Amino acid sequence: MAQPSPPSATPHRRFLDPFKGIVASPPPIWLMRQAGRYLPEYRATRTQAGGFLDLCYNPALAAEVTLQPIRRYGFDAAILFADILLVPDALGQPLRFAEGEGPLLDPIRSTADLSRLKPEATRSKYDLVAETVARLRQDLPAETALIGFCGAPWTVATYMVEGRGSKDQAAARLWAYRDREGFGRLIDILVETSIVYLCGQVKAGADVLQIFDTWAGSLPDDEFDRWVVEPTRRIVEGVKDHYPDVPVIGFPRGAGGSALWYVSETGVDGIGCDTAMPPYMMGEAFDDENVVVQGNLDPLLLVTGGEALEERTREILERMQGKRFIFNLGHGIVPETPPENVARLVEIVRGG
Amino acid sequence: MAQPSPPSATPHRRFLDPFKGIVASPPPIWLMRQAGRYLPEYRATRTQAGGFLDLCYNPALAAEVTLQPIRRYGFDAAILFADILLVPDALGQPLRFAEGEGPLLDPIRSTADLSRLKPEATRSKYDLVAETVARLRQDLPAETALIGFCGAPWTVATYMVEGRGSKDQAAARLWAYRDREGFGRLIDILVETSIVYLCGQVKAGADVLQIFDTWAGSLPDDEFDRWVVEPTRRIVEGVKDHYPDVPVIGFPRGAGGSALWYVSETGVDGIGCDTAMPPYMMGEAFDDENVVVQGNLDPLLLVTGGEALEERTREILERMQGKRFIFNLGHGIVPETPPENVARLVEIVRGG
Repeated sequence: MAQPSPPSATPHRRFLDPFKGIVASPPPIWLMRQAGRYLPEYRATRTQAGGFLDLCYNPALAAEVTLQPIRRYGFDAAILFADILLVPDALGQPLRFAEGEGPLLDPIRSTADLSRLKPEATRSKYDLVAETVARLRQDLPAETALIGFCGAPWTVATYMVEGRGSKDQAAARLWAYRDREGFGRLIDILVETSIVYLCGQVKAGADVLQIFDTWAGSLPDDEFDRWVVEPTRRIVEGVKDHYPDVPVIGFPRGAGGSALWYVSETGVDGIGCDTAMPPYMMGEAFDDENVVVQGNLDPLLLVTGGEALEERTREILERMQGKRFIFNLGHGIVPETPPENVARLVEIVRGG
Repeated sequence: MAQPSPPSATPHRRFLDPFKGIVASPPPIWLMRQAGRYLPEYRATRTQAGGFLDLCYNPALAAEVTLQPIRRYGFDAAILFADILLVPDALGQPLRFAEGEGPLLDPIRSTADLSRLKPEATRSKYDLVAETVARLRQDLPAETALIGFCGAPWTVATYMVEGRGSKDQAAARLWAYRDREGFGRLIDILVETSIVYLCGQVKAGADVLQIFDTWAGSLPDDEFDRWVVEPTRRIVEGVKDHYPDVPVIGFPRGAGGSALWYVSETGVDGIGCDTAMPPYMMGEAFDDENVVVQGNLDPLLLVTGGEALEERTREILERMQGKRFIFNLGHGIVPETPPENVARLVEIVRGG
């Protein structure tokens, strides 16, 4: 008679297989922004919460929206519902959202402004996020992995310095050119607090971490090294000092050919590929690196659906066969996405 | 006694040396948007012209603003003052500029809308541009090369379909996914008319052509091939049917690693590198291609000036030494640029 598993046994989360050197077939799948406005149930919960920030800081509701796409589609991983700008908000640079304007912050433009940031005061807000993670670990199916995340220091800094989203991240780039030391202090603050923030998420139950560097592509190579690669390397190191086994996925959006350098220097366990990453790079260039490749379907194909979606999805699956691969989009799901196209995508990836 | 050169002799334009296989030292230099708002004399002429479009279609004033940076800095090449959206305007999709909003066009979203475009009616507007070129060839110093240009079909189409600038070129990308044939017809129209437009510029006196593909980076690889590489290849071929010796520079902004493929497939003679192009690619990857490399100083360093500008400029010069290279920025000059920093840059590049 087979012994029942002891209750303390870790359930098998196939999402984690690629990080253990196992080629999973079909590949695990999750989608960036899988919890979001394209889902009617998300829109309902968001209305219930009040504003977007209220939703992020409400552990019960943030956990609820994180679970919604898992219930619908059975993705192999859930990703904590939060925002990369919770970090400046927790540091004391209050975040607000103006209708149709995106995130707004009172800009930090000089070394003097840095005194407004209080890393020692972040705890109450980081604890709310950790509580969401803890609830999720309890409510998620045992076989679903849970991804925690933060924004990379460079990307978060671009918003902190500009005070909002910008086309070319000019304010941060100019500060970085004019005053390496002062801008470097901002980056240092972000590195340190990101380690605290991510470790809190792992402690609360996150299985994997992703570092989003949305604006990595706006930096010339030497600046890329200084403000993208080096701070990310320090975060990976800082987290692994406490949790050596937690896999970290880096997503240096727009890095192009520099993604190889990023992988070899930062120590990330996985590389998120954006939509523009050439197939030969995804399929071959990372072969010599000990890294899991994740990506990179164009989210607009989820809007289109039909033949174009099928064709391109199968192309990616075929190219990545036999590799340690996680299926994902190359950018986040857009709000116009018909939910049934997401269901179809999951079906195709799982062999339908 | 030395014979005087016959008056018909072609003067030496050192800008053209790299295209003839000659390594020029110091490298020729011009800067994208070298005629523009950062120059007080440009702002004065623009006021005199009325609107931006009035300036583009006024051969005397368009020639004047083209000449202004040549007078100030003695660049090795002038670039025709015009706009990539003159082509849809000439085709019958009227272009307008709303204060603070950038370009506006009535969007073309379907095959039915294509009937609004009249390639046979472009002549009167293309002739105005050619007249600017002809005036320039007369007024420019004999040793200064003259660059004509157009927008690449993909980039021009993104504006035609969206009706304005956009963050992610979603409208054009969606049409391209949903209806390859219909969108392909728009691209065909643009390929054909661009050949006519560019040949008109060469006939009027342009020495070199550049094809600006600002949004090349927004396309996944297979779409990049279809909408960036293939149409560009056809334009290069179409122009060379009439003018086999005119060098063509391609500028597929954001193409990253795909720039190599672009170079080998399109037949361009020069590759414009954007700011994010990694140094190893600029310095080595193109070595096996028979191509002139152009780029790629960050325009924000021209705002900053000082030590950071000097250092990075010398790095680029050193790396590209011994290669067929043209010094340029990686994007256009920004309006906040102090004109004296441009003077300093030219001095550094020329050995000062």
